[in-house]
Amino acid sequence: MEFALIDRIRARIQPRRDVRLGIGDDAALLAVPTGQLLAVSMDTLNVGVHFHAEVGPAALGHKVLAVNLSDLAAMGAEPAWCTLALSLPDADAAWLDAFLDGFCALADAHRVTLVGGDTTRGPLSISVTVHGFVPSGQALRRDAARVGDDIWLTGSSGDAAAALAGIADPALRERLDRPTPRIQAGLALRRRAHACIDVSDGLLADLGHVLSASGVAAEIELAALPVSPALSAVSDQSRRWQWQLAGGDDYELLFTAAERDRDSIAAALAAVQTPAARIGRIVAGAGCRVLRPDGGEWQPSRLGYEHFAADAA
Amino acid sequence: MEFALIDRIRARIQPRRDVRLGIGDDAALLAVPTGQLLAVSMDTLNVGVHFHAEVGPAALGHKVLAVNLSDLAAMGAEPAWCTLALSLPDADAAWLDAFLDGFCALADAHRVTLVGGDTTRGPLSISVTVHGFVPSGQALRRDAARVGDDIWLTGSSGDAAAALAGIADPALRERLDRPTPRIQAGLALRRRAHACIDVSDGLLADLGHVLSASGVAAEIELAALPVSPALSAVSDQSRRWQWQLAGGDDYELLFTAAERDRDSIAAALAAVQTPAARIGRIVAGAGCRVLRPDGGEWQPSRLGYEHFAADAA
Repeated sequence: MEFALIDRIRARIQPRRDVRLGIGDDAALLAVPTGQLLAVSMDTLNVGVHFHAEVGPAALGHKVLAVNLSDLAAMGAEPAWCTLALSLPDADAAWLDAFLDGFCALADAHRVTLVGGDTTRGPLSISVTVHGFVPSGQALRRDAARVGDDIWLTGSSGDAAAALAGIADPALRERLDRPTPRIQAGLALRRRAHACIDVSDGLLADLGHVLSASGVAAEIELAALPVSPALSAVSDQSRRWQWQLAGGDDYELLFTAAERDRDSIAAALAAVQTPAARIGRIVAGAGCRVLRPDGGEWQPSRLGYEHFAADAA
Repeated sequence: MEFALIDRIRARIQPRRDVRLGIGDDAALLAVPTGQLLAVSMDTLNVGVHFHAEVGPAALGHKVLAVNLSDLAAMGAEPAWCTLALSLPDADAAWLDAFLDGFCALADAHRVTLVGGDTTRGPLSISVTVHGFVPSGQALRRDAARVGDDIWLTGSSGDAAAALAGIADPALRERLDRPTPRIQAGLALRRRAHACIDVSDGLLADLGHVLSASGVAAEIELAALPVSPALSAVSDQSRRWQWQLAGGDDYELLFTAAERDRDSIAAALAAVQTPAARIGRIVAGAGCRVLRPDGGEWQPSRLGYEHFAADAA
């Protein structure tokens, strides 16, 4: 516990009524609303692995909370609280203040209160645990896809991967450094979507988790994949497809829903200003076929991102 | 997400009925009992800062969970769930299995279920978030000490600091590497103790948090401080006092309670096989006086442990 750093953090906290005791005791004391389940997720960003050393502290503060909130979005959960474990090489108050600028702006936008954590000395590493609520029976699980479902994607995929691959475009870079957690979309999809996951490891890798959890297969139409204006400027179609399907770091929601709910879903997402497209369908069997515009089948050069994989150094 | 490592972790989990969805989705779904507050704490251990590189993985697995459970104990909370963020230099399955031996043995002993987390590549770093329950109004907070209270300590302090200082004794080393979280004592102290804190930074430093949160002062009697058999073998009294009062890493409970509750507390702690001693009293004012057996006042050479302090390299 670094008391001077903790005081800087405490000064930035926005209170919530359900936080009965926040930072400053051995544990926080929190009130979960009756009838709601607690949704909990935890993600880490490490320097040199999840981000380059030159990424600024404000972007890091935004991103580490965004990737955690994205997990709550993918469950249809309403965010409430988080804890932060921050390992820093030095007690650098200016770095911390800039980090908090990014972290707290996103926290405040989603009414998330930081209720505890740990600041320690060590190589730069940031872990966040997020807590949210979802009514019992309404969570969007990975195992709920059904044969005949449409497959949907919010926003578009591939931008972050293109930025990471070195395509110099500020819009792509913004998607990599400051992803948008699709919280409002996740809430709008309660009782409408079947399965849902956030695209962090790559569209096909994450879809694969849904397929194996649900015991179904999928067909994806390359022609239906949404492309951002910045990514559409990249002329090499095969690289573009690779980034869109296997790039990772998109933090969009991939979900499945019954065909009869198309209009309801389109309206609910439009109401929260979230673009979404139908990109394929759930079929019986196992695995995923990706259909090219010419009707042939597309094969990725690799499926997704794994930190310990040889090509992910 | 490292799928092979996660499968090794999942295989070791003991289920709980209140875990509606555990590892394997975007978030865990958990049911908090009606009428109970959720207690949440998060602590990190970093190699080279909180432990030496030669500490074995099983001891680390035990310790990282123990220091987190100790925070729940200090609130009087009943442990339920945890999440684990593990950064490893390599995907070393043998290391992970040994780590899980230590982690899961302690988790199972306290009926704590691991419900999620993250495994990533990076310098060895371990963060845990623990979750427990405490009935509304029964939490043991730092700000509840009252003038006239006795000050109590479970077990004894100073052993871990003596081991860290190089006193070669297996019993001292065991206290450093495998601390015992005082969960049963914390539960026994509900509605009996006033303020409570766990001794992680050093007895006087942690007592200082209670004093400033409660707006009171304290007197500690050196003659009343419990000493373990192993520590009593150290002949240099002034080093011993230093370790006992300022050593840190003890994970005992320091608590205050009304004088009239002495017998009730002694009986409640005896019922859960937890030794405890009265070591001083809460008085009006600010700060803490430490009284030597000869009636003089003892002055520490330093008060506690801070990771960023110059002497804590």
